[in-house]
Amino acid sequence: MKIAVLPGDGIGTEIVAEAVKVLDVLDLKFEMESALVGGAAYEAHGHPLPESTLKLAKEADAVLFGAVGDWKYDKLDRPLRPEQAILGLRKNLGLFANFRPAICYEQLVDASSLKPELIAGLDILIIRELTGDIYFGQPRGRRIATDGHFPGAEEAFDTMRYSRPEIERIARVAFEAARKRSKRVTSVDKNNVLETSQLWKDVMLDIAKEYPDVELDHMLVDNAAMQLVKAPKKFDVVVTGNMFGDILSDEAAMLTGSIGMLPSASLNSSNQGLYEPSHGSAPDIAGKGVANPLATILSAAMMLRFSLNQAEAADRIESAVKDVLASGLRTGDIWSEGTKRVGTREMGDAVVAAI
Amino acid sequence: MKIAVLPGDGIGTEIVAEAVKVLDVLDLKFEMESALVGGAAYEAHGHPLPESTLKLAKEADAVLFGAVGDWKYDKLDRPLRPEQAILGLRKNLGLFANFRPAICYEQLVDASSLKPELIAGLDILIIRELTGDIYFGQPRGRRIATDGHFPGAEEAFDTMRYSRPEIERIARVAFEAARKRSKRVTSVDKNNVLETSQLWKDVMLDIAKEYPDVELDHMLVDNAAMQLVKAPKKFDVVVTGNMFGDILSDEAAMLTGSIGMLPSASLNSSNQGLYEPSHGSAPDIAGKGVANPLATILSAAMMLRFSLNQAEAADRIESAVKDVLASGLRTGDIWSEGTKRVGTREMGDAVVAAI
Ligand SMILES: CC(C)[C@H](C(=O)O)[C@@H](O)C(=O)O
Ligand SMILES: CC(C)[C@H](C(=O)O)[C@@H](O)C(=O)O
Repeated sequence: MKIAVLPGDGIGTEIVAEAVKVLDVLDLKFEMESALVGGAAYEAHGHPLPESTLKLAKEADAVLFGAVGDWKYDKLDRPLRPEQAILGLRKNLGLFANFRPAICYEQLVDASSLKPELIAGLDILIIRELTGDIYFGQPRGRRIATDGHFPGAEEAFDTMRYSRPEIERIARVAFEAARKRSKRVTSVDKNNVLETSQLWKDVMLDIAKEYPDVELDHMLVDNAAMQLVKAPKKFDVVVTGNMFGDILSDEAAMLTGSIGMLPSASLNSSNQGLYEPSHGSAPDIAGKGVANPLATILSAAMMLRFSLNQAEAADRIESAVKDVLASGLRTGDIWSEGTKRVGTREMGDAVVAAI
Repeated sequence: MKIAVLPGDGIGTEIVAEAVKVLDVLDLKFEMESALVGGAAYEAHGHPLPESTLKLAKEADAVLFGAVGDWKYDKLDRPLRPEQAILGLRKNLGLFANFRPAICYEQLVDASSLKPELIAGLDILIIRELTGDIYFGQPRGRRIATDGHFPGAEEAFDTMRYSRPEIERIARVAFEAARKRSKRVTSVDKNNVLETSQLWKDVMLDIAKEYPDVELDHMLVDNAAMQLVKAPKKFDVVVTGNMFGDILSDEAAMLTGSIGMLPSASLNSSNQGLYEPSHGSAPDIAGKGVANPLATILSAAMMLRFSLNQAEAADRIESAVKDVLASGLRTGDIWSEGTKRVGTREMGDAVVAAI
């Protein structure tokens, strides 16, 4: 078994180092190999996703990813910006199924913007389609408009598209996930406006017939953005397209108030996967040793479970994280009165000790 | 001056009746004429936006709109569904500038999901472009894919597009609005992925040069969805495209916890406008006389200010609404311990009395 380790930029290197430490202590048989990605790869090789990094990722069973991006690359042409690395990995590895849990840990309820009774016990699983939609749809570009409001003017355009089999496969992922949970799926679309969403909804209804034990309901994306704020605990498994999923999964993550705790997994049809924290590269605190490594450590646990067939080791990591929280250790992002503030490395050490 | 009154479906008729009552008592010189729209128009004329309704709206200086929609029309072909009326009015009247305030009234802080200190005093103005983007972009439809992940499969597609002048005009609306407020504009896009968003950002930067007294910053839509939850009061004027605006304005409205209080305005370049509450037709409580008419009454105030040049009358309505809240009257949606629960009509009467 081989893991490609891609720490990336900003706090990426610090948090991935802690996850690697945790993986090491499990004493399992796998190889880890690191490579540069994002801004770090651009600096060294002139490209955010160099051929060698892509090759390593493709050949590995799983990719452990930190974070990419920094304000200083904002002026680069889009194809050279750090985020393109993550889009390139998703596309080239065919990672169509993104799992984004939004979980509110018992001890961290107070970190949320929401009133405790609305958020305590939250456990949503957002399943976002990750290789289709307007993210990758061709054609796209700039041109002179020949119709619309201002024919003759410069315009830019993108194409939202989904094909039936693309929707079918993500639907099945969602229904399978729901079978292991509360047996409810909420499919989010904008079928009152978009052709793409109408097909999305039609296909969800078709695939639902294969899963008579799972209840399916549909929600418009604007309403979903509202209901997440109003009554987040009413959701269980949510399935949606790439664009809406980008927005809603971040909204849901922030509802918990502890985005520094939330892992994610992006899988292809052979269970090869990329695992990364839900938060970003946080260049403002990079190098200070204060970032929260727990989302990355929990991403490593997801990796063991989904791609490396080591569910037991995953359980060990997850309960170690719970123990560490229970013992009162907190990084700055989740610190509150009465708990002990620790740095990135101490937090990683504590998880290792708890294992 | 002429006002087209389009009550629509569900609670629409009840809440618009109260707004009309309030307008009547002001004793201003304008004519009001009503017409059917949405499901009600479909039942009577076989179309949600009959020619006669559209003609009335076009000829009026302003449209006072209730709400449209009901589950029972979900099975109709999309062009016949109630929501198409609102899209048709926006398009045919050229209502490109949508103003969606998200205000948290002092007395209603507790209705919010958010902790009081995060929401008290919230006053955001979301300016959403309303006649472009993927809502109206051609081409769109279903076809057999010739490229992408599954060539040969059925697919659906939509086109996101914005031309430079479309972005310029909404940018100016936002900068002008900011001049009358805190002189800050946050432009929301997804320029790290979309060509359309890159043009959006470029044009915002260009137009910002005409407004050196206004500060412009940019935020990615996924981050905006998070920051609205984390620290909504950091926002002042937000400008964004049609699709992102649909999602973020609803999220922001729900943050207040009192969406039954929030009006909206949609204007064209001659200040002709459509005014409607931010909430929907609520078929579940229709006909029961319990709906909150205040968002519609406040929409009528916006109408007086923006389209009918009657700022003083608008002020009178707005302060009457504040007085009524201060006196402790509440409809069910905003009721809390210690306040007096009233119905739709009593609430309208109270505003009339306060004027
Ligand atoms: C970095 C960016 C391209 C990416 C996305 O939009 O998918 C990020 O926001 C995410 O959600 O992983
Ligand atoms: C009814 C629907 C088409 C509409 C929209 O998406 O614009 C509504 O959600 C709104 O925000 O006014």
